[in-house]
Amino acid sequence: DLHPRENYFSRETLDRLSAKRTDTVWLEERRSQPDSVYLLFSDLSPMVGPAQEDGGGAEQVETKLCRLGYEAVKDLLQKPATVLIFLGVERRKQPSSSSSSPSSSSPAWFAINTEEDAGELLKRFGQKKCCFTKTANRDLLKLSEDEAGVVAQARAVLAWHSRYSFCPTCGSGTLLEEGGYKRSCLSADCRSQKGVHNTCYPRVDPVVIMLVIHPDGDQCLLGRKKIFPVGMFSCLAGFIEPGETLEQAVRREVEEESGVKVGSVQYVSCQPWPMPSNLMIGCLAAATSTGITVDEHEIEEARWFPRQQVMDSFLGTRPAFTVPPRQTIAHQLIRHWTGMNSNL
Amino acid sequence: DLHPRENYFSRETLDRLSAKRTDTVWLEERRSQPDSVYLLFSDLSPMVGPAQEDGGGAEQVETKLCRLGYEAVKDLLQKPATVLIFLGVERRKQPSSSSSSPSSSSPAWFAINTEEDAGELLKRFGQKKCCFTKTANRDLLKLSEDEAGVVAQARAVLAWHSRYSFCPTCGSGTLLEEGGYKRSCLSADCRSQKGVHNTCYPRVDPVVIMLVIHPDGDQCLLGRKKIFPVGMFSCLAGFIEPGETLEQAVRREVEEESGVKVGSVQYVSCQPWPMPSNLMIGCLAAATSTGITVDEHEIEEARWFPRQQVMDSFLGTRPAFTVPPRQTIAHQLIRHWTGMNSNL
Ligand SMILES: Nc1ncnc2c1ncn2[C@@H]1O[C@H](COP(=O)(O)O)[C@@H](O)[C@H]1O
Ligand SMILES: Nc1ncnc2c1ncn2[C@@H]1O[C@H](COP(=O)(O)O)[C@@H](O)[C@H]1O
Ligand SMILES: [Mg+2]
Ligand SMILES: [Mg+2]
Ligand SMILES: [Mg+2]
Ligand SMILES: [Mg+2]
Ligand SMILES: [Mg+2]
Ligand SMILES: [Mg+2]
Ligand SMILES: [Zn+2]
Ligand SMILES: [Zn+2]
Repeated sequence: DLHPRENYFSRETLDRLSAKRTDTVWLEERRSQPDSVYLLFSDLSPMVGPAQEDGGGAEQVETKLCRLGYEAVKDLLQKPATVLIFLGVERRKQPSSSSSSPSSSSPAWFAINTEEDAGELLKRFGQKKCCFTKTANRDLLKLSEDEAGVVAQARAVLAWHSRYSFCPTCGSGTLLEEGGYKRSCLSADCRSQKGVHNTCYPRVDPVVIMLVIHPDGDQCLLGRKKIFPVGMFSCLAGFIEPGETLEQAVRREVEEESGVKVGSVQYVSCQPWPMPSNLMIGCLAAATSTGITVDEHEIEEARWFPRQQVMDSFLGTRPAFTVPPRQTIAHQLIRHWTGMNSNL
Repeated sequence: DLHPRENYFSRETLDRLSAKRTDTVWLEERRSQPDSVYLLFSDLSPMVGPAQEDGGGAEQVETKLCRLGYEAVKDLLQKPATVLIFLGVERRKQPSSSSSSPSSSSPAWFAINTEEDAGELLKRFGQKKCCFTKTANRDLLKLSEDEAGVVAQARAVLAWHSRYSFCPTCGSGTLLEEGGYKRSCLSADCRSQKGVHNTCYPRVDPVVIMLVIHPDGDQCLLGRKKIFPVGMFSCLAGFIEPGETLEQAVRREVEEESGVKVGSVQYVSCQPWPMPSNLMIGCLAAATSTGITVDEHEIEEARWFPRQQVMDSFLGTRPAFTVPPRQTIAHQLIRHWTGMNSNL
């Protein structure tokens, strides 16, 4: 279902039209259009329903976002605790002409996070079997590829609003602006009113995630955290720190977590991960040493796995370990390395 | 002076020893060691002196960080407004053995940001011709490659402390922890005390910076902002937004700023940019259209430049435009594309 080099959470179905974020008249006008689409979040969880009427086993069911219209959410928009963000407009499938503003008349999408009682909301809107996703990491992976991309954008921005409603420079309250892409300090003499800084803008945390390849070229290093499901192993990963490149972050994190030294690093592809707002930067990393000493604070176990064992684990024939879900870039990176079909 | 694929601000001379950040006894002990090195920042500017005694024209002079010892900064460390961060320990040139903790006994480096009067500080510490750098973007580019890397780390973390001393979730004060890599909310019932979130950790803002190549393969797209020095053109760049990949950010920003459409994107290398804490991710981008419409809010002018004109501009023979300084990844990316020697 995914195109080459495309990861879950990374399909773009909307044009963000960022120039329109400051056009309050246009935004206001689009909000009440009958074709505008609203996604409803409660405590950062989107309202979803089953993708098919019947649906198979509860765990496997694909879910679908509930799309609401302006009339349905009109009163929620009035509540002071409601956060509204503009997501963009639908991309035209076939750009009909190269005229100046081809898509600003396409249906506009918005996302709302509300603090109203979730049960009440479901009673009001929940057509059939609608609910709010519970565990972000699991339930958000059940969307279609098309909807996962929209949710990645919406959830990451809404998560920022939910955690950054006070100005970190002075502690004052802030005002949501620019369609939800800016929060400005309400104190006129705050230092955030001038100079170059980032406190007003949504945060994106870059993370490196890497498959470390043994010097013999035929084994890869996988680790497991205590919180992983039993038997699952995955790629090592870590936050890029201030003042380092992604290649340096790969070398540092691998050595910290496993004791293995890394030489060359090759970027492969990346994935937005909206829990809350990470950018996973996927790499292959060539080990220059093989001895393993795990950092027990973070990693329970790390091991070299021969390529054949990895392939068997993907195929489920004689699984040596449980592979991470296909929606993760870790899955795609490992699969890519085996030479099996992969999105990367 | 730079190795292949190495950019200014990206040389690592220290081992961050991040595991030691929570070891308050060790940190405390290293702070007062006679071989510990302190870098002093005033208002986020490092104290520097001329690298050579005589030095040529004022503009060209290479500067050198002033390295202070514990005795010199002891009283500054007592002031409540002083921010102290642990940078790491010097890397051994030749790792003498593969023993467990090879470098934790090497000299430790710290950085201090102080709010004391800069003039007074210079009087006290300023050996010969010391000063605090004035304009970050210009003066920080005069360091040696070795020192630029340390300053990138120190300045980015200090800039975070200077802007994030209040908890963005509840507006309370925060406490600096873990050697300067964490700030925890002082309110016991703040939501930041639990769950997965990023408010406690330093921020790194990923930015894409790209050289767009004309479909004919022999021209590249460069733009200028109003604030650039007269005649200078450089790569387009922009912040990665929540929920997008770096490839999508490249396509979106190029189209927003120049109207040019981009197809495939190739990662080349990256550069930390500590003003305040960006990670510049450098790419080549293949244009699939050629008409230019600039976003006048951001870009004054954008033009296709033939490769020969670009090479002439680097060589200074018949410059068509002023190239960005060699310390920028933009310079290296453009040079790389011409096929001339480059770090990338
Ligand atoms: N932006 C961030 N968000 C969450 N945790 C962070 C962040 N930056 C650093 N950390 C720390 O990094 C740890 C996870 O380690 P790693 O992902 O390997 O870097 C967390 O437990 C935090 O202590
Ligand atoms: N983290 C950030 N720091 C500074 N400016 C940002 C940030 N995120 C978005 N912006 C906005 O991006 C503009 C610069 O545009 P660009 O670099 O092309 O994305 C700034 O003027 C801000 O309005
Ligand atoms: Mg990790
Ligand atoms: Mg880490
Ligand atoms: Mg780690
Ligand atoms: Mg820009
Ligand atoms: Mg932008
Ligand atoms: Mg831009
Ligand atoms: Zn403020
Ligand atoms: Zn708080």
